[in-house]
Amino acid sequence: MKKKLTVIPGDGIGPEVINAAVKVLDVIGDKYNHEFTYHYAKLGGIAIDEEGTPLPQETIDLCKASDGVLLGAVGGPKWDKLPGHMRPEKGLLGIRKALELYANLRPVTAQRSLLDASTLKREVIEGVDLMIVRELTGGLYFGQPQERRQGPDGEVVVDTLYYKKSEIERIIIKAFELARIRNKRVTSVDKANVLESSRLWREVAEEVAKEYPDVQLEHMLVDNAAMQLIRNPKQFDVIVTENMFGDILSDEASMLTGSLGMLPSASIGSDGPGLFEPIHGSAPDIAGKGIANPLATILSVAMMLRYSFFLSEEADAIETAVSNVLEAGYRTGDIAEKGEQILNTEKMTDKVIEN
Amino acid sequence: MKKKLTVIPGDGIGPEVINAAVKVLDVIGDKYNHEFTYHYAKLGGIAIDEEGTPLPQETIDLCKASDGVLLGAVGGPKWDKLPGHMRPEKGLLGIRKALELYANLRPVTAQRSLLDASTLKREVIEGVDLMIVRELTGGLYFGQPQERRQGPDGEVVVDTLYYKKSEIERIIIKAFELARIRNKRVTSVDKANVLESSRLWREVAEEVAKEYPDVQLEHMLVDNAAMQLIRNPKQFDVIVTENMFGDILSDEASMLTGSLGMLPSASIGSDGPGLFEPIHGSAPDIAGKGIANPLATILSVAMMLRYSFFLSEEADAIETAVSNVLEAGYRTGDIAEKGEQILNTEKMTDKVIEN
Ligand SMILES: CC(C)[C@H](C(=O)O)[C@@H](O)C(=O)O
Ligand SMILES: CC(C)[C@H](C(=O)O)[C@@H](O)C(=O)O
Repeated sequence: MKKKLTVIPGDGIGPEVINAAVKVLDVIGDKYNHEFTYHYAKLGGIAIDEEGTPLPQETIDLCKASDGVLLGAVGGPKWDKLPGHMRPEKGLLGIRKALELYANLRPVTAQRSLLDASTLKREVIEGVDLMIVRELTGGLYFGQPQERRQGPDGEVVVDTLYYKKSEIERIIIKAFELARIRNKRVTSVDKANVLESSRLWREVAEEVAKEYPDVQLEHMLVDNAAMQLIRNPKQFDVIVTENMFGDILSDEASMLTGSLGMLPSASIGSDGPGLFEPIHGSAPDIAGKGIANPLATILSVAMMLRYSFFLSEEADAIETAVSNVLEAGYRTGDIAEKGEQILNTEKMTDKVIEN
Repeated sequence: MKKKLTVIPGDGIGPEVINAAVKVLDVIGDKYNHEFTYHYAKLGGIAIDEEGTPLPQETIDLCKASDGVLLGAVGGPKWDKLPGHMRPEKGLLGIRKALELYANLRPVTAQRSLLDASTLKREVIEGVDLMIVRELTGGLYFGQPQERRQGPDGEVVVDTLYYKKSEIERIIIKAFELARIRNKRVTSVDKANVLESSRLWREVAEEVAKEYPDVQLEHMLVDNAAMQLIRNPKQFDVIVTENMFGDILSDEASMLTGSLGMLPSASIGSDGPGLFEPIHGSAPDIAGKGIANPLATILSVAMMLRYSFFLSEEADAIETAVSNVLEAGYRTGDIAEKGEQILNTEKMTDKVIEN
């Protein structure tokens, strides 16, 4: 197989973890006889510094012409004081929209060897294996109007939660498709007792469910979901929800396993390339030191292989290698308990490759 | 002191826990020489059944004419299939709006004797003492338009996140006032990297902070807050946030202590009566059995005494009694570990009164 990839190292530890991921991908290419070629592009803070915009047109064009996009991380305190439209996040939101990456998949699995790193009790998280499917190009993030106004009682402000029915449909279908290849359960999360958008969401979920008689659908209010994720996370298989709820719940869920540095994500559209990135941020405090945990980015490569290129054997190989390395007791600083052996980014990557 | 209270038992276990709370309040009245008089009113499911509306005008009038409102719980599966405007929740949202109860205070404290009931590790929650201050009468809950439309690409739906600057100001001031009598730290939670309303929120927080040089202000993004509540809840003192974020985060936080049945809440306005209720729901599965945990409602009475009537000695007396009863090993079914002594609602209430 030949695949053209756009690689966006981004800011902070982004370049370091991306390097690690590309190394692993090259080894997969050699071993399984695929040819991966890479084009590097800029996004976020570095793009602001060098091109004067968080999302250069060239980056969009490169991404669109490729089969997949690998992203490190964007942002950092350096750019935090810039006005809204010049912030690194705009680059991220912009590329999601430009590529119509409407589905953000975030698997949360408890790595057996890291169970004790969680603030939750071992028996609560042992065996957790859920996937959050977050709508990524609609809702409050992109709805118009989004503005301040002068009213008779002074200043007011408005954001708009906007969805087309078709946008709700496609993300719910995606969730059901995923549930079918997992444990056949979908929890649709909304706030139907308050929001009109949630009531439509719930109706669409019911409609779509009819096409998937083999998958069980359950509705849950978002406030209850925030509780249930802590109370009993094992009850979940696939959770599907709108953009803002998904942002909050997926970050909450990422804490279950106690290691943000371990979790990958995939953002995909109907056709065209997907975007794969670790869910952790750019960690400016440790950037450049060569000690960042590359595993989330490496696991994001596995998601690309599995969900975009349908290379499940290759994806399995990476995921198994990561588990083995952890089982063998190797750790980066962020996931090490007292007394454990700490590797830097490069050594950790080599261990994964060995395995 | 003479106080006129409106008592709204509501649905499910509501009447049982309200009975318990009124008993405790009567004892406080006798002991400290206050006169509490009660007027009973209907809200939610029972109001739908008996008056044909979730929020009868009479209930609003009674509440407005009183010094405080005690609420049990509203809702249940019986009314879940009714159209939006006829659901029990509308009664709750309606009374909040009618009384302009813009500040919802939810303290989360780890009861020492219940630490093991949590799914979080003991060392993470031991000593947690935070207060969520949720804006309660604005944002997505009440913004207009909230509707479906037919567009050129089919059906679309809109909800509106709307705030007046003055609404943001008053809730943030409330948070700073509370921080002043607590640990002098305010965490303002928003999504300023995406929402215009959050950017205004952040500006207002900065402005208000200038008037409270003795209180420390920190901003946190809502996704990060959802993580930090699990990672290290002890870092928080007062958390202030908008309505929907507050709904999600306060329910998440309620899980920290492992006992939803223990947590009280207060909803207050600028003047006029406040509304005090347990944060748990109507628990239809155990309604009528006399086994519900009355402690959250009893603790809500303590909040009323403290925040509306400024009777802190009386409030302390109730809170200490509840702690003592728990320390002595008494439990209701919902908070009992194996082997512990289980009391029903009435017996538990008597134990609190004894203490
Ligand atoms: C950086 C921010 C705009 C972004 C989001 O809210 O979508 C991030 O939190 C994420 O979840 O990828
Ligand atoms: C019943 C519902 C409308 C309500 C809310 O979302 O405000 C409840 O969840 C709460 O938190 O009091």
